[in-house]
Amino acid sequence: MNPQEYAVQHQQRFLDELKELLSIPSISTLAGHAGDIRRAAEWLAGQFSALGFDARLFETEGHPIVFAEWLKAGEQAPTVLVYGHYDVQPVEPLAEWRTPPFEPTVVDGKLYARGASDDKGQVFAHLKAMEALLRTQGELPVNVRFIIEGEEENGSTHLYPFIASHADLLAADVVLVSDTHSRSLEQPTIVYALRGMSYMEIEVFGADHDLHSGTYGGVVHNPAQALCEIIAQLHDANGTITVGGFYDRVRALDSEERAELAKLPYTEEELRQETGAARAWGESAYALHERTGARPTLEVNGLVSGWTGEGAKTVLPARALAKVSCRLVADQDPIEIYELVKAHVAQITPPTVRSEVRLLHHGRAVIVDRESPVMQAAIEAYEAGWGHTPVFTREGGSIPIVAEFQARLGVPIVLMGFGLPDDGLHAPNEKFTLECLWRGIATSISFFQKVAAQQSRV
Amino acid sequence: MNPQEYAVQHQQRFLDELKELLSIPSISTLAGHAGDIRRAAEWLAGQFSALGFDARLFETEGHPIVFAEWLKAGEQAPTVLVYGHYDVQPVEPLAEWRTPPFEPTVVDGKLYARGASDDKGQVFAHLKAMEALLRTQGELPVNVRFIIEGEEENGSTHLYPFIASHADLLAADVVLVSDTHSRSLEQPTIVYALRGMSYMEIEVFGADHDLHSGTYGGVVHNPAQALCEIIAQLHDANGTITVGGFYDRVRALDSEERAELAKLPYTEEELRQETGAARAWGESAYALHERTGARPTLEVNGLVSGWTGEGAKTVLPARALAKVSCRLVADQDPIEIYELVKAHVAQITPPTVRSEVRLLHHGRAVIVDRESPVMQAAIEAYEAGWGHTPVFTREGGSIPIVAEFQARLGVPIVLMGFGLPDDGLHAPNEKFTLECLWRGIATSISFFQKVAAQQSRV
Repeated sequence: MNPQEYAVQHQQRFLDELKELLSIPSISTLAGHAGDIRRAAEWLAGQFSALGFDARLFETEGHPIVFAEWLKAGEQAPTVLVYGHYDVQPVEPLAEWRTPPFEPTVVDGKLYARGASDDKGQVFAHLKAMEALLRTQGELPVNVRFIIEGEEENGSTHLYPFIASHADLLAADVVLVSDTHSRSLEQPTIVYALRGMSYMEIEVFGADHDLHSGTYGGVVHNPAQALCEIIAQLHDANGTITVGGFYDRVRALDSEERAELAKLPYTEEELRQETGAARAWGESAYALHERTGARPTLEVNGLVSGWTGEGAKTVLPARALAKVSCRLVADQDPIEIYELVKAHVAQITPPTVRSEVRLLHHGRAVIVDRESPVMQAAIEAYEAGWGHTPVFTREGGSIPIVAEFQARLGVPIVLMGFGLPDDGLHAPNEKFTLECLWRGIATSISFFQKVAAQQSRV
Repeated sequence: MNPQEYAVQHQQRFLDELKELLSIPSISTLAGHAGDIRRAAEWLAGQFSALGFDARLFETEGHPIVFAEWLKAGEQAPTVLVYGHYDVQPVEPLAEWRTPPFEPTVVDGKLYARGASDDKGQVFAHLKAMEALLRTQGELPVNVRFIIEGEEENGSTHLYPFIASHADLLAADVVLVSDTHSRSLEQPTIVYALRGMSYMEIEVFGADHDLHSGTYGGVVHNPAQALCEIIAQLHDANGTITVGGFYDRVRALDSEERAELAKLPYTEEELRQETGAARAWGESAYALHERTGARPTLEVNGLVSGWTGEGAKTVLPARALAKVSCRLVADQDPIEIYELVKAHVAQITPPTVRSEVRLLHHGRAVIVDRESPVMQAAIEAYEAGWGHTPVFTREGGSIPIVAEFQARLGVPIVLMGFGLPDDGLHAPNEKFTLECLWRGIATSISFFQKVAAQQSRV
């Protein structure tokens, strides 16, 4: 039996196993889930060990890193380093889930669960590719290392120092990452650019305690209102960010790249379908796919102040908080962007209140080489395993650690996305289409074989 | 023994009893506290019954109304209707309380507990005045009715129809309300104007589900940002509300009233001391005490959208909510103000999002006659019981039901405040100064005696 046949034959068991992994609420942002995080890490390490990988957990001051390697292809064979993450986003608002987020449920060929697509399902596709290759061939065609972290949704805080101090463990000829999505089942997609991130909190302080809005309304500047005034001034009427210097380092799209991206246009109608938004918004000088892929953004991720429960409370709040994140493109510097936002907010904060801007986490944007030989292997792998020639795109999201791999390892990076645009990442009713799972496994098997074949041609 | 001596002699027991009442978390806004609300109502009814009042609970679709009357002074004697409320505000943010909100604690002569000043402590002062009169004189000098509701902090929803349908029960010659504060221990204060209220929710809707801020940031109008843009446009740079027609019906201060109010100036330094705010804010054409007493306001009482927990979540929220309340002055119409705000918000809502404005509750502003004979009785009562001649002021807060009493009963209303400005109403560490409690009881005893004496002079 060849590996592809094996993968097809074991689909039912694979699905059951993925459901096991998805049942573990490994939410990295919430301190109460540390035990779940560890269970998910141990589940993965157990799977790799069972396949003959040398698998272990590296402890950090945060959540453990799963590391697993199989190096029996010999020193001449290339080494592929697969990166993924086993932690997931919080599930709020819980009431909007049609099925419980940690009770994985298949409906119409789609597997619903938090983490189904981001990123457990995609990591699982590579894991099962390993199984299919090992169980049918007795070996892998190349050396393989997996590094699967538990803090991607919380800034990868402890992976950065780990990478810096474990260069030997991570040595590889190519880094493979599946934490993105394909345009559609017919348009598998290789992402060649990821946005960076500066995630901040902006907090405005008024009185030193909550006040009665009848007694003090009209004479004390309400920090909730002042925060709104500040937020409202961060974009102009055209959707352009007003922070001085914000766009200074943005690498402009050249006409060749604009033309290539335009082959994969993203229409307002598609946007409406996917989001339910009334219409598109943003920088009118750029096409929609350029706005999300090649332009930086500044978004409010959360607001909270005063009374937020049912009914009425006539409080004049003492403070108001916004969570604000900037998506960055090459060659913006996340720390510099934070400093610019901080200076701008300080400048527009009225003297009647006090404000603070705090950086929670950050990462650089990435652009990878579209012409590398491993990119060719990825194209062929998609053609063989997915059944379609892939398209190239820039991704609006951020995987800041990819910038770190690029800087530290200096090897080609392939971003092979198995998800779909409507997977509902970070939202209620996240799902992974089963057809994507099966094609993902097939494409992964094929990729490792193509990389090996390419090497033997050299 | 005279009633004043009795009250002094029983201070320790009075304090213990008030602590009992304050221990009951009768939070009317939160459905889970219905049982506590009832316990507080029964506690009060029990006290009145023990004094020989005819006391009962009137059930409503919400929380019960405590009604108690003592009518043995005869048909010739005047009837005083005392209004108060036994419900309290929520206690959040709980972490900021130095002592638990429902474990009443005396520190430096101040009794700390939710409801200590607003309004259980003040209701209790009148209750104990009744006890001092009855236990020493065997009777009251006038007929007395108490109506103590359990929904004042939640819009008095069921008291309005009760008043409309029980005119006979409420018939009185004067209404006495203690739900305000005195300027200081040396400046007992009679409030002659209360602001009205229109409490609203403004909600902005973007996509039909929460989105990944990387995938959709920059192409979908973020409703949290759009809400901020709307809120920021509700005041101009001078603190004036921009809603068209908002000020049209505001009754202007005449120079005589301005001069009288100016006798009791409120300085920016006092504001800083009380609130910790960096400086004053608001309509510069009006003095601080005019802004809170004679001008309407629009305040954000709460904001909530997206991720508000610890750490980072890169969500582009589907909706954003603001709680907004307008404090109104005579002769603004609360429903008309809601309609004006609604129309204004609709007008400034960009086409990229959808907005809703909902009215939660409302009440009219009140101005009472400063020249009525019972007002003279109140002045004399303060001089005798509190030890100082009272000053007259306009109050920034709202007791919407007072407008209803004014409209339905058409009799003089006396707003006799026993609290102090730093009582922390609706905020953490609410307190009632014990000296205010003792002087409040003494002033109440005196008021009932003065009203009787006034009647006998006629």
